[in-house]
Amino acid sequence: MATDTSSPASAPATETGYQQPTVDVGSLLELLDGRYRDVRELVRTNLVTYDAVLEDAEQMPTDDFRDRVRDLVVEMAATGQTGMGFPSEYGGGGDIGASVAAFETLAFGDLSVLVKVGVQFGLFGGAILQLGTRRHHDAYLRDLISGRTMGCFAMTEVGHGSNVQALGTVATYDAETAEFVLTTTTPEARKDWIGNAARHAELGAVFAQLEVGGERHGVHCFVVPLRRDGDVLPGITIEDDGLKMGLNGVDNGRITFDGVRVPRENLLNRFADVTEDGVYESSIENPNRRFFTMLGTLVQGRVCVGGAGINAAKVALAIAVRYADRRRQFEATNPPEEDLLLDYGQHQRRLLPLLARTYALHFAQEVVADELHQVFSGLEAGEESRRRLESRAAGTKALGTWHATRTIQECREACGGQGYRAANRFAALKADTDVFTTFEGDNTVLLQLVAKGLLTDYAGEFEDMDQFGTVRFVAGLAVETVIEKTAVHKLIERVRDVLPGGDEWDQEAGLLDPDYQRMMFRFREEHMLAGVARRLKRGIDQGMNAGEVFSRVQDHVIAAANAHVERLVLDAFLDKLAGLPDGDQKVALSLLSDLFALSTIEADRAWWIEHGRLSVTRSKAISREVNGLCRKVRPLAVDLVDAFGVPREMLRSPELLG
Amino acid sequence: MATDTSSPASAPATETGYQQPTVDVGSLLELLDGRYRDVRELVRTNLVTYDAVLEDAEQMPTDDFRDRVRDLVVEMAATGQTGMGFPSEYGGGGDIGASVAAFETLAFGDLSVLVKVGVQFGLFGGAILQLGTRRHHDAYLRDLISGRTMGCFAMTEVGHGSNVQALGTVATYDAETAEFVLTTTTPEARKDWIGNAARHAELGAVFAQLEVGGERHGVHCFVVPLRRDGDVLPGITIEDDGLKMGLNGVDNGRITFDGVRVPRENLLNRFADVTEDGVYESSIENPNRRFFTMLGTLVQGRVCVGGAGINAAKVALAIAVRYADRRRQFEATNPPEEDLLLDYGQHQRRLLPLLARTYALHFAQEVVADELHQVFSGLEAGEESRRRLESRAAGTKALGTWHATRTIQECREACGGQGYRAANRFAALKADTDVFTTFEGDNTVLLQLVAKGLLTDYAGEFEDMDQFGTVRFVAGLAVETVIEKTAVHKLIERVRDVLPGGDEWDQEAGLLDPDYQRMMFRFREEHMLAGVARRLKRGIDQGMNAGEVFSRVQDHVIAAANAHVERLVLDAFLDKLAGLPDGDQKVALSLLSDLFALSTIEADRAWWIEHGRLSVTRSKAISREVNGLCRKVRPLAVDLVDAFGVPREMLRSPELLG
Repeated sequence: MATDTSSPASAPATETGYQQPTVDVGSLLELLDGRYRDVRELVRTNLVTYDAVLEDAEQMPTDDFRDRVRDLVVEMAATGQTGMGFPSEYGGGGDIGASVAAFETLAFGDLSVLVKVGVQFGLFGGAILQLGTRRHHDAYLRDLISGRTMGCFAMTEVGHGSNVQALGTVATYDAETAEFVLTTTTPEARKDWIGNAARHAELGAVFAQLEVGGERHGVHCFVVPLRRDGDVLPGITIEDDGLKMGLNGVDNGRITFDGVRVPRENLLNRFADVTEDGVYESSIENPNRRFFTMLGTLVQGRVCVGGAGINAAKVALAIAVRYADRRRQFEATNPPEEDLLLDYGQHQRRLLPLLARTYALHFAQEVVADELHQVFSGLEAGEESRRRLESRAAGTKALGTWHATRTIQECREACGGQGYRAANRFAALKADTDVFTTFEGDNTVLLQLVAKGLLTDYAGEFEDMDQFGTVRFVAGLAVETVIEKTAVHKLIERVRDVLPGGDEWDQEAGLLDPDYQRMMFRFREEHMLAGVARRLKRGIDQGMNAGEVFSRVQDHVIAAANAHVERLVLDAFLDKLAGLPDGDQKVALSLLSDLFALSTIEADRAWWIEHGRLSVTRSKAISREVNGLCRKVRPLAVDLVDAFGVPREMLRSPELLG
Repeated sequence: MATDTSSPASAPATETGYQQPTVDVGSLLELLDGRYRDVRELVRTNLVTYDAVLEDAEQMPTDDFRDRVRDLVVEMAATGQTGMGFPSEYGGGGDIGASVAAFETLAFGDLSVLVKVGVQFGLFGGAILQLGTRRHHDAYLRDLISGRTMGCFAMTEVGHGSNVQALGTVATYDAETAEFVLTTTTPEARKDWIGNAARHAELGAVFAQLEVGGERHGVHCFVVPLRRDGDVLPGITIEDDGLKMGLNGVDNGRITFDGVRVPRENLLNRFADVTEDGVYESSIENPNRRFFTMLGTLVQGRVCVGGAGINAAKVALAIAVRYADRRRQFEATNPPEEDLLLDYGQHQRRLLPLLARTYALHFAQEVVADELHQVFSGLEAGEESRRRLESRAAGTKALGTWHATRTIQECREACGGQGYRAANRFAALKADTDVFTTFEGDNTVLLQLVAKGLLTDYAGEFEDMDQFGTVRFVAGLAVETVIEKTAVHKLIERVRDVLPGGDEWDQEAGLLDPDYQRMMFRFREEHMLAGVARRLKRGIDQGMNAGEVFSRVQDHVIAAANAHVERLVLDAFLDKLAGLPDGDQKVALSLLSDLFALSTIEADRAWWIEHGRLSVTRSKAISREVNGLCRKVRPLAVDLVDAFGVPREMLRSPELLG
């Protein structure tokens, strides 16, 4: 190819010894599959077995398709694919990491199936497992793991999507009958968007404000029977959310409770209980902390959605890159033969940095999935590990799902009009993944959570901060709390310390030096955080309304969190590389990590220039280097997407891929 | 509202005399409607009359919905809405500007209806009108204007989307029978994505390589009967393109011709003809120029799609802004009451610069629609006006449709999970507008066209440059041609001249000074163009393969075109403002033009810094000013979206808007 043999764009010094590598697809796939290769292989086999579901999604009437997806989920459950995270004594696989790997891989296929699996086993099953105790496990786990009992996770309400602590559904304890009475107190308190509710769920894990003897104890979770033999039970009203942009194989619904009674034992009582005669008891005294401890056990959902987003992006890239390597348009290099799209510089610019970022996010996801496994398998204990996990899960989910939205759109446009056909996957990918950015935590809210964790982490004070939710962070009171707990001057010292060589270091380091890249990312993160802290503090000190201070600093807060997560992503990629033996694979992946690091710096280069860490000359050199890296990655691009291991059947796209 | 009364963010000097304006929605709507207020009013009335089609789109089986859309288009035709651009002697309205205004306004509603109208009256009707002569007008116009005869526009082929000059369908003249014989020569030459083809079209305007006596004369257009009484005619094979991401009310299809014969008179012969005994004649000698002259007459389609994209963005903004002004989430300012989403700084940042850009694009669209009207009504003649129009149409279409994609996505995310319901419009808006970025000219290809026009324009040499298409620009040969014709040194002089005050000017001008903003935009445009020209020339001079030179400079080329079009957009906005009387409306629109200008500079601020036109201090001041402008626009935001005049029925969204 004409562009492959071109001389490198960057300065000769950085090029010493560079030889264009080749990629062994099989060995790279093995690396990406990681320790759960067998699990991923099982899911890929299942995806191919049930590949007809991709067409069913287009052709079946909604209710038929919903039933089809349910049946398919139950069939997959029988292969062990969906129960890997549950204890083996109930028929599960006893391996949390395996369950994440299985879920991520499932994202190569129809995403209604994925979300139905997430609802049944992740959300509903997760609530029973994590918030319940032995009696609940004995009663429900075996049947939910097999799919014999379908359930739903009824948290979100019309009035409260993100602010879960303010839910309006109330569960009042009736000591006379030893029952809880669940009531939807206002139209705003109606449960909404509950997956599995409109058609299939027999049970619900329902979140409500617990009231005992006239006293409120905050949000707790109750097992509530919703249907028997397909009929909705008395006191419960279920409406269908109707047609959605995508994911129409999932039956989302709205639930209203009108004095619905459940036995006292239906409170999922791992963290709190009510005695028969109506005394509230909890091992966690502080209500805020209790709430966030409960929510924190459900972090797996976020880890899974982030991974699913990244894998959906892989499907889009696999199609667009392969298409660009066979589609010719306009004669440029050797008329009259037209050139391949992927030989055009602009086309490389569109696709290859996204390819690099996908690899980077893949390795970052590997880290967070591993942390989840460590923490939830009890291999790593302690409050701090949990907080770190929750923050990392929130950040990776936000960046991973935004990346999916952006990548799928870019890939679709890069395939021209043909990308518009439903059979070419982009229609489903776009429509189905769209909600990933706002469900399991709205991305902007999640990044605020990350930022807040950082501000408090850095001050070294952990107690009683509501890490998982986000309520207090945006609440006026909490702005002050955060500020008090954050030693601003410490942050600023850290910013100075982080660049050991002083101001001269960036003059000497090569652009492709991983230490240079790390330091650039680290500097941005620390400097932004210090700035946020300073601005928050100044506003409060000046007597401004805390809410207004927050509103003004909010974009800065989110930028700081983004900088932090991008640094984690780079670290994950570089750490992975450091562990690889020398050879072509390492060289190829280094091209991608350089492309990820430099295209990320390029995109935000104004910031580094404004903060004295990037000269104009060097900034321009980075843009040239990004172009140069694109040209080097170009001949590897098809192998690099093949190594994602997306089964050919999942790509469809007969016109695009031939 | 807490944030409304806050003190302005910018320096006091720029704030002298500023008073927060109010917006008179009725009077602003009148301004936006412009000279075609009555036309837009008629379309709005029709949209409301047929508002049930929005639900039909979700509920009807595909073929039923296609028929429904066809019927609706015919009914709308009876109101005069769709025929405004055709000569009155055939039942049209005789006003090209009116037809654009009608089309743009139709984009508030179901977009299958819009595209069906575009296919029938814009593409098919436009081909008959612009490429045909009296005999074709007499034969077809009356029936196509009324919708009695449905037609299609068969240009695109499987193998050639953007590179139209290389089409593979051949029309051979048979002098013995005085007929053209149309043949699909290869599988790649099959017509594809032809709207109206799968089900409704009786006639096609078919583009094919004309061959007379063994000699090729390039692409010409022929009227070809496709169906009679609903049956496809012999020699013609039509396949259905099947389900698409969106626009499923339009019956796209694939057409193959196997020796299909049409009379000699069916050649649309405005620019070229074949005599009965087989002599090719044309008033335009140069085949390239002839081709692009023919294509150039079809520019109206691009103008219309750009306007439709901008108006689709208005629908999304109207929903998201109103929702953000009533949805509360988290208590920040005055606990325990939760705050309105639109009072959060980040939410303002998400939506309000997009609102400002929508206004800017609206006025830019007004300019290009007016130019179209002038040129095609013969009010303004000459090659130069046509070229300017074509370039402006290409640029506005690219920026307008990308803006639609981005705005709809951001608005959807800003509405959280509720934005995912089909009834809330975002599903249809996303799916239906998606293809706008790649049809009627792929946006990246269009921007290359714009850049090429600029390079040649600036050199002052116009002859024989294929302005409309894009083939030659990416072709190696043409790179050299462009370079030869472009006096690089002239460009560089212009860059120096464009900033009359020398290097000091930006130190003194206020950020809100329109002259400052104009000069910034202008400088970027000129400097980027000069850079492109220099890089192209250097590559060629160094003996590099022309295609490779182009590939390397391509992102720079596209950035230059983007800079040019953004400058045109700013000019359009500022020119509009200059013509307004002093008062609140002008003040309010000035906030938007400032927000557009400064957020555009902010987004690309690295470039200006790198090129010595923006100091770091000033760059940070711009970011602060953008935040300050967002706060000033915030209390006007609902009125500003109301003034778009999107009928309430077109917004739907019962949950979001109450």
